[in-house]
Amino acid sequence: MPVVKRNPIPVSDAVKKIMEHTSLWGTEEVPLTEADDRILADDLSATHDVPPFNRSPYDGFAILSKDTAEASETHPAKLHVLETIGAGQVAVNQVKSGAAIRIMTGAQIPNGADAVIMLELVKEMDEHGESYIEIKRNVKSNDNISFQGEDTKKGTLLAETGNRITPGLIAVLATFGYHTVNVFKKPIVGILSTGTELLDIKEPLQPGKIRNSNAYMVAAQVRAMGAKVNMYQHREDDFESLYENVKECLKESDLLITTGGVSVGDYDFLPAIYEKLGAHVLFNKVAMRPGSVTTVAVHEGKWLFGLSGNPSACFVGCELFVRPVVQSGMKVRKPHCKAVKAVLGADFPKANPFTRFVRAVLTEGVEGNVVTPAGLDKSGSVSSLLAANAFIVLPGGTRGWEKESEVGVLTWNGEGSEWPWDSPLFFKSQATRTAEKQQS
Amino acid sequence: MPVVKRNPIPVSDAVKKIMEHTSLWGTEEVPLTEADDRILADDLSATHDVPPFNRSPYDGFAILSKDTAEASETHPAKLHVLETIGAGQVAVNQVKSGAAIRIMTGAQIPNGADAVIMLELVKEMDEHGESYIEIKRNVKSNDNISFQGEDTKKGTLLAETGNRITPGLIAVLATFGYHTVNVFKKPIVGILSTGTELLDIKEPLQPGKIRNSNAYMVAAQVRAMGAKVNMYQHREDDFESLYENVKECLKESDLLITTGGVSVGDYDFLPAIYEKLGAHVLFNKVAMRPGSVTTVAVHEGKWLFGLSGNPSACFVGCELFVRPVVQSGMKVRKPHCKAVKAVLGADFPKANPFTRFVRAVLTEGVEGNVVTPAGLDKSGSVSSLLAANAFIVLPGGTRGWEKESEVGVLTWNGEGSEWPWDSPLFFKSQATRTAEKQQS
Repeated sequence: MPVVKRNPIPVSDAVKKIMEHTSLWGTEEVPLTEADDRILADDLSATHDVPPFNRSPYDGFAILSKDTAEASETHPAKLHVLETIGAGQVAVNQVKSGAAIRIMTGAQIPNGADAVIMLELVKEMDEHGESYIEIKRNVKSNDNISFQGEDTKKGTLLAETGNRITPGLIAVLATFGYHTVNVFKKPIVGILSTGTELLDIKEPLQPGKIRNSNAYMVAAQVRAMGAKVNMYQHREDDFESLYENVKECLKESDLLITTGGVSVGDYDFLPAIYEKLGAHVLFNKVAMRPGSVTTVAVHEGKWLFGLSGNPSACFVGCELFVRPVVQSGMKVRKPHCKAVKAVLGADFPKANPFTRFVRAVLTEGVEGNVVTPAGLDKSGSVSSLLAANAFIVLPGGTRGWEKESEVGVLTWNGEGSEWPWDSPLFFKSQATRTAEKQQS
Repeated sequence: MPVVKRNPIPVSDAVKKIMEHTSLWGTEEVPLTEADDRILADDLSATHDVPPFNRSPYDGFAILSKDTAEASETHPAKLHVLETIGAGQVAVNQVKSGAAIRIMTGAQIPNGADAVIMLELVKEMDEHGESYIEIKRNVKSNDNISFQGEDTKKGTLLAETGNRITPGLIAVLATFGYHTVNVFKKPIVGILSTGTELLDIKEPLQPGKIRNSNAYMVAAQVRAMGAKVNMYQHREDDFESLYENVKECLKESDLLITTGGVSVGDYDFLPAIYEKLGAHVLFNKVAMRPGSVTTVAVHEGKWLFGLSGNPSACFVGCELFVRPVVQSGMKVRKPHCKAVKAVLGADFPKANPFTRFVRAVLTEGVEGNVVTPAGLDKSGSVSSLLAANAFIVLPGGTRGWEKESEVGVLTWNGEGSEWPWDSPLFFKSQATRTAEKQQS
């Protein structure tokens, strides 16, 4: 087995390298009723004006405004009511001088009418089986008419490639008759678990072995990012058979993630396999904790991710490096974890030589964001994954952080960020920041 | 058709009335691989210790610490290496005085050994085909051992009823062999569109008519809340046939939402139908804009929601009143829209007699939250639904709001809130707040 040298690069460089290699997944047409949360692959425009015709915003009477020019308390205008139309109905009659049509909210303004007077402002009367109204005020031309196109003009750009399909967008697409939509395909993510120590989740415990939790976790993570999952299992700790397996799995995948158990040679197999494949390795070590041994490579338009076998490192690597590949391939404009700032809810006294991602509970609220480290911060611990909904990102080179410090936080829930790495909160040490604050 | 009187109640009272009537949906067992985002219906505990056995956190040698008691630079301890074990393997030999076993990260500590020394701290040697190591320092008992149960003890509560199943929880459940999980059933939400003016989204436009957008929007909203959808269409504007239709649809639904077109009698049909059904009407008018004509009733353990026919009112009504019913039925602890505070990014000069929900774009970022009204704020406008991801909640009784004011915001993305209505941001006018600020 060849030995591969590892040179750690900063997290921000690793993300940048990845972003230079992303490309688009294909597209497919899906029914609007199955398009929730999918990413639009077309720019879509209004196919007609909204409203599509002049319509009444109230229940009332469509009239000719000039018939009310002389109307007053003492000399009301009296108009003959020709018919009543509800929303969806079209008047049979035209409105000529001396006439009115009773009209309900949403109905099309009848021909001839140039204004609507609200129901509660007229007096309705019956005379010899005919309906009349009396109006005691002057109504202006165009009063109470919602004009064709006043909300949206035909041809207006509604949504762009890369937009997520929300309930609001679904309403708009339904309005314009888009009963199917062109969306980006979900990339296929193969997940290949390696390690003789791994039991399937249905198996009982055996001496020295543990159940495979990483594969199920990563599968849920990438599904949430918008991908489809193929699960594979490899139990032999042997370079050649793993090499063949990687080659086969890669044929069926757009991205292949290997999650190692922490077994013999685990950290060295994948980089060597990538080399044998002829893959272009973007990096094989990152200056971060946990997850420093993460390796990412590209090969013939496909991606290879060698994530660390420990659960927390695996989680971090997936969010930092897999997320932007999956989402940039759909032109999502905020393909990274969402970056916010928060106040530390507890001391974090550990010295911090590397950029550290601390699993944490972020509480966003009316009174601001508070973030507190979650449970044990051992990299092998699964229990701290339970409560965590965010990472605190602590720049390296510090002796720890005090409660109430302002820190940068990345959360995998919500809308994402474009590029969280430029904020001073994420990469300057507390000492640097304090110094800057005192100067300013 | 009976006429029903409407008495508006405050939004907070409406939500409270709803919360008094929620009850649990049933439960079902699903595979862990299909449990993403479902809500747990059981309290789950650790089925074994984690780690399940004493294990090595590093690649190294399992030894008896007392063998190194006298070890030094000049007098190294020399130990015979009996075998090598990787993760998942169990040692054949016991570690007795004078012996060591080469052990990889994650492997079980062999019987007899009481410490591990890291690979890089020993000198490995071959003599006559046998392996030996030299150790030049004193190793303490228990050094470099991850002890059984130090992360999680058997019986520890892992997750509770009402927890959302996240990738982190999936990892933990996989660890403990929960290959299926008991989750709350998705309630079935029937959506009954009414209005002769409504065209299906596949139909071409016709004079006086518009396509049905509300039903598709509400369907996407309630799916995002965790419900299943049945779509129904009713085109006749006639009390008796709609009454029969409501009765039939309610048989197949846990919640039945009617979204009216804005047609004749639309605002009165549903309350009257609820009365004829013998349903208990919780409220039929709310002191809010838009959506004041929202009606909510309960009947034989089922829910009836009469949402306004205009798109924005329909959206607001669904988020405010349907969301907590769907989610409380799964014991979600934050069943309401997420409440945050933000700074107004633009003036909102409109006078405001009622509590107003302004569709808005909330930008959450490292530098704090900014919220800006989205597009036209006409209640009939669909185009303003496009960009909106939140409502600004403006208490009634004010003459408008200035840019930079701090306002309460509700967003339907993210984790939700327990009860957003008690914050002064949501129900006190700007004048009241300014007065309070000056006093304090």
